[in-house]
Parts: sequence; structure tokens; C-alpha cells
Amino acid sequence: MGERPLRVALLGCGVVGSEVARLLVAQREDLAARIGAPLELAGVAVRRLTRARDVPGLDAGLLTDDAAALVCREDVDLVVEVVGGIEPARSWLRSAIEHGKSVVTANKALLAEDGALLLAAAAEHGVDLYYEAAAAGAIPIVRPLRESLAGDRIRRVIGIVNGTTNYILTQMDETGASFGEALQEATALGYAEADPTADVEGFDAAAKAAILAGLAFHTRVRAGDVHREGITEVTAGDVASARRMGSIVKLLAICERSADGGGVGVRVHPAMIPRSHPLAGVRDAFNAVFVEAEAAGELMFYGRGAGGAPTASAVLGDLVAVARHRVEGSAGSRDVAYADLVIRPMGETVTRYHVSLDVADRPGVLAAVAAVFASHAVSIETVRQQQHVSPQGVSDEDGAGPDAELVVVTHAAPDRALAATVEALRDLDVVRSVTSVMRVEGEER
Amino acid sequence: MGERPLRVALLGCGVVGSEVARLLVAQREDLAARIGAPLELAGVAVRRLTRARDVPGLDAGLLTDDAAALVCREDVDLVVEVVGGIEPARSWLRSAIEHGKSVVTANKALLAEDGALLLAAAAEHGVDLYYEAAAAGAIPIVRPLRESLAGDRIRRVIGIVNGTTNYILTQMDETGASFGEALQEATALGYAEADPTADVEGFDAAAKAAILAGLAFHTRVRAGDVHREGITEVTAGDVASARRMGSIVKLLAICERSADGGGVGVRVHPAMIPRSHPLAGVRDAFNAVFVEAEAAGELMFYGRGAGGAPTASAVLGDLVAVARHRVEGSAGSRDVAYADLVIRPMGETVTRYHVSLDVADRPGVLAAVAAVFASHAVSIETVRQQQHVSPQGVSDEDGAGPDAELVVVTHAAPDRALAATVEALRDLDVVRSVTSVMRVEGEER
Repeated sequence: MGERPLRVALLGCGVVGSEVARLLVAQREDLAARIGAPLELAGVAVRRLTRARDVPGLDAGLLTDDAAALVCREDVDLVVEVVGGIEPARSWLRSAIEHGKSVVTANKALLAEDGALLLAAAAEHGVDLYYEAAAAGAIPIVRPLRESLAGDRIRRVIGIVNGTTNYILTQMDETGASFGEALQEATALGYAEADPTADVEGFDAAAKAAILAGLAFHTRVRAGDVHREGITEVTAGDVASARRMGSIVKLLAICERSADGGGVGVRVHPAMIPRSHPLAGVRDAFNAVFVEAEAAGELMFYGRGAGGAPTASAVLGDLVAVARHRVEGSAGSRDVAYADLVIRPMGETVTRYHVSLDVADRPGVLAAVAAVFASHAVSIETVRQQQHVSPQGVSDEDGAGPDAELVVVTHAAPDRALAATVEALRDLDVVRSVTSVMRVEGEER
Repeated sequence: MGERPLRVALLGCGVVGSEVARLLVAQREDLAARIGAPLELAGVAVRRLTRARDVPGLDAGLLTDDAAALVCREDVDLVVEVVGGIEPARSWLRSAIEHGKSVVTANKALLAEDGALLLAAAAEHGVDLYYEAAAAGAIPIVRPLRESLAGDRIRRVIGIVNGTTNYILTQMDETGASFGEALQEATALGYAEADPTADVEGFDAAAKAAILAGLAFHTRVRAGDVHREGITEVTAGDVASARRMGSIVKLLAICERSADGGGVGVRVHPAMIPRSHPLAGVRDAFNAVFVEAEAAGELMFYGRGAGGAPTASAVLGDLVAVARHRVEGSAGSRDVAYADLVIRPMGETVTRYHVSLDVADRPGVLAAVAAVFASHAVSIETVRQQQHVSPQGVSDEDGAGPDAELVVVTHAAPDRALAATVEALRDLDVVRSVTSVMRVEGEER
């Protein structure tokens, strides 16, 4: 067992960083036993030296506002980055790697932007770059995808990887609230930030989707390659419609191999999934990643996707791994982007649609609608037609005769054909409006 | 990238082994890319050379009935054992390790019996011993427990780790079947073996519980240390009673740190858990492992716990890892039993009980029953009392006056006190019979 302590530079001491610092102290003995050498904080880089830090036992003399100098100090072995954002984090980590430090990061934006370059730099310099906390928070998914399933072939990864949007959608499902009302509640409870854009528009989920796709398919995927739709346009009506067909609306991050095996599609959008699907039961701010592999079958990984302590747990797990490698003089398994599959555009992705239409209630409407689907080679799985009762009990509020609601669920077809079908439906004169369009994922079980 | 192929000795070519052999051929190129060197079958040890093998492309010349000779052959780098059972598997693996081969095994009985000795031998000889498939089949749980959570402190692991019993209990819950009827159906569908003892009596789950406890608590736990109760005595009445209180009966493998932190309790028994608990939704032959850690919070890992292809997937994942280590000249992280916590007997384990009593329907009964609980210092959480209606509509079939049913759920107490309470209740003269006793686990959410 090595004796020399391994010295850790911590970049960032906010919600996650202070929890990492706290655990380094609280778990000191367990960590030393697991690693074979004690871990010691060499320095903590912060933006403002004067701000009070709520870390019992943290020596104020360790604080510095010069992260760039800290990461190349000779007495530092390992660098933990929990600052977030692309710059200056990228420069610091590159410098750390070039100076022979192993790195642990929770920075999903950076990984989804420049992960491949940083990983290549780490390989070149013989150091580790670990990022479990960047993929799905505290949920251990990097090792399962990279190692446990290394002898298998992954077909599809479907994740609920954003806690804010899952909380909002759970509220909408359980209380009938609108998006706006549910967002307001999420904000009040601290589940949504003051500016919720990164969450509700799917940017956070898209970064994680890129990271998961890279791991699952051994292919470089960047956040910009991900088709992204948020949940701001999900209505109480969509949620109610999902409920009527035994489904629930979730914001899904989907990474899948194309049917011919040569391409990868990566997308984030709301979708209806059957309530019997294991992902349907993932409530509130919990996250989960569902994996379909050829030999292993269906797997799911469930837990907290965010928060100080859960994220710190994932960071510490990585820190133990890279520290062990230091003690043993080895390095962990490398991410290999050997497959380099083509990233397919959304239009080529095969999906299913749920479409609700407000139509004139007269004979021939269904035939006209069905003809539009047929002309785009989209096959219909189910149609449900019902007399429309408006909230006021008046069914012909626009004076154009009675309305009916037509709900169509399609079989699988290229997204492009489905989107074109919806456009054509909008122009059909028996269609008063397209009230809801949402993709359908997951099989009944 | 290494060029020399790594040569694999496969011990066993049954349901799992033939799938391992098939995947080694089918995934040859992907495996080589992930490892940095191709994998080659050096030999396949089987019991009967003459039996036909359903492995396309398997060279019959590789078959041998001399496993002991195969594992020490100089041209073998890695040994995969999917034979099962303690001997001769143990001797073969010990010999393989002594001859410098890294080993992958799916053998839960052996790991739960002698894992510590084999792991120590592997450490001494500088080779890997990997066993993901032994812990929970295809569910990646070894790496998460050993590595991802290495910086955290695990409080409790609760697993549904046996597919046969979970299938039977799912049937009993969904159809109202008796244990015997559900077992018959499981046998007909191939979910239960001709002799189902290892599954229904909890031996299989106990072996897995020992392995999981060792990983979670860094302590040596053997199958014999596990308190074990099977599901043969679970009645349709127990299942219905669970349903009435919003719960479901599952066979749980529970590994937990004692409240003082200095001990570990490991047990397998049927228990009622709330339907809102993530484990409650694990249906049919699926398995799941629920983990409560101090920083990470609640995590769950879900998938197939058995079957040829899923088990082979876990074996291959391990094989890629140990092969990579060969190419890099390193070894994986060691299991460290440094904590060596005391294993606490079941009587000291703190649990909750659900007790149904057939009682005389007259004043004072509840007071008498409550006094028995109180005299054992067991506190009652809820009592439900109802007029008992027998299937024949006759409530006093024994001629001793009308019956009532009393259902008591306790607060947490030492199992010994709860068991003694039940014994005392049996002797109480207002109690005609104790119709159901089952532990209650998991909190409402």
C-alpha cells in the first residue's frame, strides 16, 4: 500500500464542490483504504476568495483565485473540476492534462462540446479523464456502458436525464396543471432555476444525450449533433390525451443505432410512453437511463440526476478510480471512438406520431384524413374519433358546424414523412386545427 | 495497439457457455477494437465430448473433456468459467490463477462460498478475477458498487435477485393464484427448473446477497451468513392482504449496515413493500437492485438476472476488461475487505412485521392483543379490524362464536422481539390463529 498522499486540486467550491470537499474530509479513512493512499486537498480554486465557504474543516489557506496556476503545480496529482461551462474550464483541464494530472470532471457542456479532444489529450499524456457525474449525475452509467456492456451491442439508450423537466411533467400528469403552472411550482421548490431555459428547452438533456451516445456507440457525438425540442409547448391537453391512451409524457433523450447498423440518431424531445414501460414510473426529479442491448436485453439505471451530494458521490467514485490508477501506476480504460458511425438527421429517424385533430363532424372526414397519411406512406395504427365537447358545452363555437376530435397514432415511419403529413393535415379543409402532435416511444408490455 | 491475440479457455458450453462462444465469434471485430487485440478461443471444456453443440463456427477440435489440463496450458491467457457449482470449478479456477491466467466467472455459489480466498489468490498472483454475472446476471452492479460508489457510504442494498420467485409472486399478485398454481405455471413456461428448491427456498438469492453485501460493505460475507426464508409459505391470503394495504409481496435480498455502523445484516425473505416503491414495479422474471447511499441517495439497477444471452453479456463485459488489462499490463481494482464488519444475527436486525390474526369478535380482544405487543416493547403502527366472512358465508364454523380479522402493522423493532410477539399471540386465547406473518420493507413515497 502506497504511503505518499495523493494531492487533489479542486476547481470550484459551489453546491457540488463544497460537498466534494466535505466528503474528502468525512470519508478520509474509507477513501484511503479503498485507494491504498490518503487523499489530500492541495488547493481549492474559487472565483471570490472573500465568500464564506460552508465546509467544516476546510483550511482557508487552501483557497486560491488562480485556478490556472493551481492545475500545473508540481505538488498536485489529481484535478477535480466542478466549475461548469466551456471556458475557462477547458483551458484549465487541458493544462492539467498536459502537466500530467489525472482529471475528474462533472462538466457536461464541456464534455459534449470537446470531450473527444480532451480524451485524446489524456490518452496522449497517459492520464485519466473521468466524467461519471457529467453523464447522468449520481446514476452510475459510464462504467456500465463503457465496461459492463463492452462485450455486447447496444441498440438504443433512452434516458430521462433532466430532473427539472421530469418534475414539471410529473406535476402536469398528476395534477392536470399547465406547463406554466408546473414550472412556477418547480421554481418555488428550487427544482427549476430562475432562468430555466437550459432545462425546459432541452439543452441540458441534449448535452447528456451526446455523452451517452458517444459511450454507447463508440462514435463522436457533440451537443450540436443532437436534434432538440423542449417541453415548453407541451399542453395539459397533450398530457390528458396521453393518459387516455394509457401513456405518459416524458422528455426523452434517445440515442439509437439506425436499422442498417451504420448510423446513429440522437434526439431530445417530449414523447408519450406506455405507463407499463419502466421509464414511466420515474417520477419527480428522479432520472433514469434505459438501455436495450442485443444480448443483455433491457436494463435500466435509476437515481438522482442532479444535486450537490449526489453529484459529489459520482465525482468521488471517479476520484477513487483515478487515484487507484496513480497508486498502481496504470490508467483506466480509454474511450475509443473506433466505430465512427454517421450521425443521421432527424428526418431519417424512424418514429411514431400521436396526432390530435379538431375536425368537422361530418361523413367523409376520416377518409380525407386517412388519405393524407396514405399519400405520405405513413401507416395508421389506431384512430379514435369522438364528439368534441368544448369547455363551455358549445360544440360549434366558430359557427362552422359541430366539431369532433380525431386522435391518430401511426405506425413507425421516417420522421420527415410524419412531419410532412402533419403539415398537409393543417391544410386540409375538414381539419379545423391540429391540436397536438407528439412522438410515441416504447412498446406496450 | 497489441497484435498478439489473447487466448481464451472456456469452461462449460451449456446455455451460457454456448452463448459466450457465439458472441466471441459474432462480435470478433468489435471486441478486438475495444480490447486492442483480438480474442481467440483456445479450448472449450465440456463434460461430454459427443454432445452436439449449437455454436455456428465453433471448431470441434477445440472441445476437450480435460478442463484441469486446459486451464494451465501455456497458450491460454484468460479463463472463463460458466460450469457452476463449487467443485470442480474451484480447483480449476485456483489452478488457472496459480498459472497466471485472469479469470471471469458467473459462478455465484462458488463466489458466495469461497470468493474471498479466490480473490486473495488472484491478488497474490497479479491476475484479475471478475464475476459481474455472478452478482445479478446481466445487471451491471459490481462496477457501480465497487467503483462508482467507492467515494460514498452505502447504507442498504435491497435486491430482487431471483427471476423464478419474482415471476411466481407476480403471478400470485396479478391473478390471485396460490403458490402451487403459480409454480406450476412457471415450470410450464421454463421459468422454474424441475427441482425448484434453489430458487423457491431462497438459496440462489442468498448466494447473491452474500456477494452484494461483500461488495457494498467491504466485508467477507458467505452464503451461510445469510438469514434465509423462501416463498413456499407465502399464501394467496398474504398477497391479498398486501394488496389491501397498497403493498406487494416480493422476495427481497437485503444487505444493510446496522444503525451503529459497526455491523452488517444480510437476509433473504419475502416482504411486503409499498406499490409506490421503485422495486414494486419489477415484474415477472426481471431483477433489480436498489441501493441507498449517503451522498448518492437512492439508486436502482434493473434488468435480466438470468438466461443464456444476458449472462453471456455480463461475462463478455468482464472478459473485455480483463483482456484490456492484459494488453496494458495492468490489473483491475481489487476487492478490499478492509472494513471487516461484524455480521449481525437476524434476531438483532431491525424490521417491521405485518401480522394477520383470526380472533374472536368480542370486546376486549384488541386490548389483549395490544398488551402482548406492548409486553415485548413492540410498538404498533396501524391496526385494522374487520368482521371475518368465511368463503361459505358462515362466520362461526368452529362453533366458538363469530370471528374477526385483526391486521397489525408494527413500527420497527428487533426481529427477535417481533418473532417472540407472534409466538405469544399464538398462545393468547382470544386468538384463534395467526393467519399471516410477513415483514414490511420500504417507505411510502
